[in-house]
Amino acid sequence: MSSVDQTSPDQTSPAQTAAAFARDLSRLLRPDQVSTGQSVLEQHSHDESYHRPVLPDVVVFPESTEDVVKVVNFAQEHQIPVVPYAVGSSLEGHAIPVKHGISLDMMRMNRVLEIRPEDFLVRVQPGVTREEVNAALKKYGLFFPVDPGANASLGGMAATNASGTTTVRYGAMKDNVRALQVVLPDGQVIQTGSLAAKTSSGYNLTGLFVGSEGTLGVITELWLKVYGIPEKILAARVTFPDVESTVRASTAMIGTGIGVARLEFVDPLVMAAVNSYKHTAFPEEPTLFLEFHGSEQGVQEDVALAQEIAQEEGGRDFVFETDEHARNVLWEARHSAAWAFKAHYPGTEHMSTDVCVPLSKLPEAVAHAKRVIAEEGAIGGVVGHVGDGNFHCSIAVNPNDEAELAKVYRVNERVVEHALSLGGTCTGEHGVGLGKRKYQAKEHGPALAVMQAIKRTIDPLDLMNPGKLVDGL
Amino acid sequence: MSSVDQTSPDQTSPAQTAAAFARDLSRLLRPDQVSTGQSVLEQHSHDESYHRPVLPDVVVFPESTEDVVKVVNFAQEHQIPVVPYAVGSSLEGHAIPVKHGISLDMMRMNRVLEIRPEDFLVRVQPGVTREEVNAALKKYGLFFPVDPGANASLGGMAATNASGTTTVRYGAMKDNVRALQVVLPDGQVIQTGSLAAKTSSGYNLTGLFVGSEGTLGVITELWLKVYGIPEKILAARVTFPDVESTVRASTAMIGTGIGVARLEFVDPLVMAAVNSYKHTAFPEEPTLFLEFHGSEQGVQEDVALAQEIAQEEGGRDFVFETDEHARNVLWEARHSAAWAFKAHYPGTEHMSTDVCVPLSKLPEAVAHAKRVIAEEGAIGGVVGHVGDGNFHCSIAVNPNDEAELAKVYRVNERVVEHALSLGGTCTGEHGVGLGKRKYQAKEHGPALAVMQAIKRTIDPLDLMNPGKLVDGL
Repeated sequence: MSSVDQTSPDQTSPAQTAAAFARDLSRLLRPDQVSTGQSVLEQHSHDESYHRPVLPDVVVFPESTEDVVKVVNFAQEHQIPVVPYAVGSSLEGHAIPVKHGISLDMMRMNRVLEIRPEDFLVRVQPGVTREEVNAALKKYGLFFPVDPGANASLGGMAATNASGTTTVRYGAMKDNVRALQVVLPDGQVIQTGSLAAKTSSGYNLTGLFVGSEGTLGVITELWLKVYGIPEKILAARVTFPDVESTVRASTAMIGTGIGVARLEFVDPLVMAAVNSYKHTAFPEEPTLFLEFHGSEQGVQEDVALAQEIAQEEGGRDFVFETDEHARNVLWEARHSAAWAFKAHYPGTEHMSTDVCVPLSKLPEAVAHAKRVIAEEGAIGGVVGHVGDGNFHCSIAVNPNDEAELAKVYRVNERVVEHALSLGGTCTGEHGVGLGKRKYQAKEHGPALAVMQAIKRTIDPLDLMNPGKLVDGL
Repeated sequence: MSSVDQTSPDQTSPAQTAAAFARDLSRLLRPDQVSTGQSVLEQHSHDESYHRPVLPDVVVFPESTEDVVKVVNFAQEHQIPVVPYAVGSSLEGHAIPVKHGISLDMMRMNRVLEIRPEDFLVRVQPGVTREEVNAALKKYGLFFPVDPGANASLGGMAATNASGTTTVRYGAMKDNVRALQVVLPDGQVIQTGSLAAKTSSGYNLTGLFVGSEGTLGVITELWLKVYGIPEKILAARVTFPDVESTVRASTAMIGTGIGVARLEFVDPLVMAAVNSYKHTAFPEEPTLFLEFHGSEQGVQEDVALAQEIAQEEGGRDFVFETDEHARNVLWEARHSAAWAFKAHYPGTEHMSTDVCVPLSKLPEAVAHAKRVIAEEGAIGGVVGHVGDGNFHCSIAVNPNDEAELAKVYRVNERVVEHALSLGGTCTGEHGVGLGKRKYQAKEHGPALAVMQAIKRTIDPLDLMNPGKLVDGL
């Protein structure tokens, strides 16, 4: 990362005050839970996005809900922004402390607290990562299905309503968070939801906090829904003559209701980058990566139907991967698209659009996006969770080149405008963060004012991750 | 219904004012859209619950979103409560205008506006019923799965986050409402959500309005997720030696992840009432009603596994119903439990508890509930959506007998307290309405204050269905 914003923080927290705050926080917690070291500040100034880094004044490492309460109360008293941080895998700048203040690093709250196999539930702290919870669940024959690719923290995934490759079967975070513990801006600790599989009791606060991107409070515990590891998992890939036929085949598969658990499109440009990055030899053609979950017999049946549908659309070279290792190679390839792209174009950062459109509009939207990339002269390919209507333009951009950045912004803007005109959304899974704020008014119309009213009610001093989500430009 | 509250409305709307309001509303809309006729007022004074009826001052029949806006603006100007009403099938008094005012009858807004088969979406007005939308969807090979038993309106189902017998497979309303049009208390019309299958854009307002029971605004349009009618549907029933073994078998079936779409427990007392009401001859034993959805082969496989599990728990007399008519007889029997109960005990109303507990706690919770019914000397049986951990004590009560009512309240209270102690909820699907308000503080703790703050923010004059949900006692 380059061009860190080195300007001094704004007037509420000039440098000497920041040092005083750090001293106070060190006393409130322990000295080793507070850092103003330059490398630590820099590490917390950015995420995986192309957004310009901003240094926090201080980084705090809470180890318990009580620690978070202390920090939040302190922040409230001194009117200092609080921005939760974990793995830093956001693609939209969620964890960048654009108004400086406290970066609240949740990674020491990394315990799997309770596994209840008979209730299909697990209770975790927010700093537990997706891979960690799955490692803990494996011996019970269980798994947590939401898979955004990155080994993100579960707190961060809930905060952004992350989803990913398995959503077509298992839903997004909002479908898999059963209950939350949240520290509110005023230091109160609330529990949302219950352990029951369904409830009609009170407003759905779990649903409100999931996807609120740290703007309403700090998530300190999560109860997540887990699933039995399917008897049979089969991965496959198949190539198609063009984007349109790939997408048509995908939507047809969804229509049949078969047990497809992943349904991923990768375009030739991205396949080429992946091949060179992972030293693989996948055909550099429009490719559909699939995964089937079910019983032995059920998967057989589903695969036969999927093959038939694929063939009708000109699909060829169906390759199956049954063993876990080969399956992992395949999905690692898919998941490494962003890094592959960055490596393929040295000196660039990875910018990703993230629109989601109604299924029937997907072929049209993908074709439009490819046209826009070409017209704007950007370097980019398309990957997509085509079972959900969600796709990304992966674009390589030098973040220090203003002209190039402007080009990329134009691509994003045109892709978003088009998706909205089709009844879609500006972000299917990456969240709003910094990059999608400007589309909130257009997407939500007068509903944005309701969101902003809720924000003001719960966080009247605007200290929780300020400058994000509903903070209109 | 008896003992209608005939006292004059409170000071903000005495009788002569009500008449004047009705005249004004008749001019604002058309005269045939406004009624103060005694029988119309009485019809809108109650629902299917045991709660005491209360007369509205006036009933208004909007025919469009614009009509709703006019009524809501009028209500705001004159500070009159607005209580949406549709089929009146609530079991918790949601539609009873406890503070009088306007009963907003949504049943003229009953059009299926748009079916988009290729997007698996349907757009409806709130007065469309569950059966009506399914009739419209059938020719596309689609269906809307949420089934609370009653032929409820879809607006009412969304407002209470209804669910029912198919939740174990298809989820509750919150999982199947894609987007909403809502008239806010200030007359603004907002759209929540989008047509995309997933979104991380802005706060999840759809999730907030679903289950808000008319306290935040009036739902005027819904986009609902629909599904392909399964290739094969097979209903079955099986009897068990006792409640515990039935529940254990159910939770074991859930654990395997088989394609069971309904999983309903009915106890012997309720089976007896159903037999006498429907002239059926079901064995009067602990019974599990099941339904399997899937492909021919998949259902075969699932049924075999379910039978094996049932047999391990002493299940016997597995009876299958493949044809649609026999299946309907079976499900009508299950759905008529409440009416059967009422008919079986003349002069009584039906009161239903509605707790939902973590799956593993279900045997314990059902056993406890049966003990409580016996100890309190109430007349009641247990039915349950055991795949979700949600069960009901169906209790016959004479609503004019204070001592009997007190007995029933005690049953409810003890059952709720027990469910909460197990990490459950006071209402799995019926909603809070009037009867569960007193448990909101206990269930939600300080989170209730957040809900109340949201209510005050969106409805500062407390005119939208006042006295319900978050209106603590």
